[in-house]
Amino acid sequence: MPIQIHKPTLLLNEIICKDNIKRMAAKAQQVGVRFRPHFKTHQSGMVGHWFMQEGITSITVSSVSMARYFAAHGWDDICIAFPMNLAEITELNRLAKSIKLKVVVESAKVVDQLGSLLENELGVYIKVDVGAGRTGIPMDNSEKVKQVYKRICHFPLMHPEGLLAHAGQTYNTRGIDAIAALTAKAYDQMNSLRLYLDNSDLLLSWGDTPSCSMLSELPPFDEWRPGNFVFYDVMQYHIGACQLSDIAVAIACPVVAVHPERNQVVVYGGAVHFSKEFIEADKGFRMYGYVVELTDAGWGEPIAGAWLSGLSQEHGILNMPDHYMNRIKPGDIVGVLPVHSCLTVSCMREMYTTQGHLVPCMK
Amino acid sequence: MPIQIHKPTLLLNEIICKDNIKRMAAKAQQVGVRFRPHFKTHQSGMVGHWFMQEGITSITVSSVSMARYFAAHGWDDICIAFPMNLAEITELNRLAKSIKLKVVVESAKVVDQLGSLLENELGVYIKVDVGAGRTGIPMDNSEKVKQVYKRICHFPLMHPEGLLAHAGQTYNTRGIDAIAALTAKAYDQMNSLRLYLDNSDLLLSWGDTPSCSMLSELPPFDEWRPGNFVFYDVMQYHIGACQLSDIAVAIACPVVAVHPERNQVVVYGGAVHFSKEFIEADKGFRMYGYVVELTDAGWGEPIAGAWLSGLSQEHGILNMPDHYMNRIKPGDIVGVLPVHSCLTVSCMREMYTTQGHLVPCMK
Repeated sequence: MPIQIHKPTLLLNEIICKDNIKRMAAKAQQVGVRFRPHFKTHQSGMVGHWFMQEGITSITVSSVSMARYFAAHGWDDICIAFPMNLAEITELNRLAKSIKLKVVVESAKVVDQLGSLLENELGVYIKVDVGAGRTGIPMDNSEKVKQVYKRICHFPLMHPEGLLAHAGQTYNTRGIDAIAALTAKAYDQMNSLRLYLDNSDLLLSWGDTPSCSMLSELPPFDEWRPGNFVFYDVMQYHIGACQLSDIAVAIACPVVAVHPERNQVVVYGGAVHFSKEFIEADKGFRMYGYVVELTDAGWGEPIAGAWLSGLSQEHGILNMPDHYMNRIKPGDIVGVLPVHSCLTVSCMREMYTTQGHLVPCMK
Repeated sequence: MPIQIHKPTLLLNEIICKDNIKRMAAKAQQVGVRFRPHFKTHQSGMVGHWFMQEGITSITVSSVSMARYFAAHGWDDICIAFPMNLAEITELNRLAKSIKLKVVVESAKVVDQLGSLLENELGVYIKVDVGAGRTGIPMDNSEKVKQVYKRICHFPLMHPEGLLAHAGQTYNTRGIDAIAALTAKAYDQMNSLRLYLDNSDLLLSWGDTPSCSMLSELPPFDEWRPGNFVFYDVMQYHIGACQLSDIAVAIACPVVAVHPERNQVVVYGGAVHFSKEFIEADKGFRMYGYVVELTDAGWGEPIAGAWLSGLSQEHGILNMPDHYMNRIKPGDIVGVLPVHSCLTVSCMREMYTTQGHLVPCMK
């Protein structure tokens, strides 16, 4: 590897990442859906530029700060896919003056407050809850959706964009058939809602990496907003949304201690680098990442029987099989594929390509 | 509150924090132990200055980067309480040139490599494992401790400082008697080791917030290194190490959606702000923080029956009792006491005092 590792360093395999971008962009183009990738995973102007090179012109972000960052990086069609935060109205007005900004609402009262404070044109999506249970108007409450829709139409500066859903429950769903079924059901419900609102111009906006990655054919949504696919991670591999070879990021960690008596290695690389996201199995087993060997070109397959088993603030504990314990020593550098790349990037806030180039992220 | 909240903002109650500092410093002074507080919790030059005002001159950090940061803020006696990372030898040599630097080792081989690369005087502690099982030489392996000690003495630039332990297992221990028992046992073992090494100048260095907070009398260690006590958090409250009124930090979060049908409120404040640390109870219950009302002076007691029950990247889900659901609305600002203040500070990287002053942290 052309970069020397002194401390935990987030590595990005540019080739894998660009392949992930190209594959999803091509899939969207083939079915003619508008591709509005979510940029919360990479939070990087440079990675964003790789999307531009594929002809992408519209994006999704998860905060006003992120919208401002990407507007400064040349994006002029940005949807903030997060319930409208009235406390940021000043910044929102400023942004809406210079770019085609879209926000997401789920309450008529919020629409009214927004309407009274708005100074520039704004696209407005209505958030619907297709079963994730996090936020959005429950699908069976079509009256509330209509009420919100009417309030949007009431304000000349607001343009009703469509119905927006994030099927977060795909993360707890296993198997392509189950994911296909919930996607089909959500589409039918959203389409019925659109008919009920009697406006065929409303977009049905859909987005989650598992469904957009796993299904060879999705229902005819108008817009896709997956995000994680740009890097993928161990969680997506467990869901079945990617191959291990599609994972584009790994943290390089210096080995600082070895404990052959319990088959454990201590690395510099802790909760402040990985986040504390984990995959849980029975008997309290927690797994925070897969262990890989670093190579000149990047990293190899995960080492069978090795995993990141514990994290404190700066320490990581790797459980390792016997034959690796014999050859690993303090001063070595190992790689770890993270369980959740979005949170890991947010912890690290910069990456290095495996060619050694710095990739800054939003600070 | 004199500061206007637009997005998740880490609030620091300066009065509570200074009280926490004063109380622990006074306790250490009373028993005549050297106080070497761990600065990984606050990671802030300004909070460090409050320690200086109490006459503290020696500190602990958890990384070379943090040692560099605090050296730049005027600290000249710093112990990096993390297994020696050989990959950072250049930076270490640079630091050891200008301050009284101490490191921690647990392997004779690492000592030899360090010795061959060292350019300046360095204090060296031997890390012993008193039962936390994370890192350090197991207490029953006195031969290995002796071997490491001899190698340290072999190098003229290295000065053997003492035996250093972090009783991380206090975090899984409940009850003052159990914590007193494990502390007493660890002291006896460490003291026996010191006798075995036949050097009464070696310090016995001890540090964890639960034992240093809860025990009115500790065994006669030579040095204390607690860290979290500067802010405390919900985890420490659950252990019994602090009162709720000792918790010095809260995140102010804008309310963005309310869901009376399931007694939940959605706030802007997610995993990238709090970290994903949680307290687990039976039936899969996870709690990421307590909910408080913000006041002019700071915040009140936690609201009974309210807790932060879920986190995604930017969203937090609050479970709220009926009588609060009726009065909370989008645009309101609520406070949340974090489960683990160290990780929360590391996510946020800056704080505001409840008087409205910015407190920058290490970036």
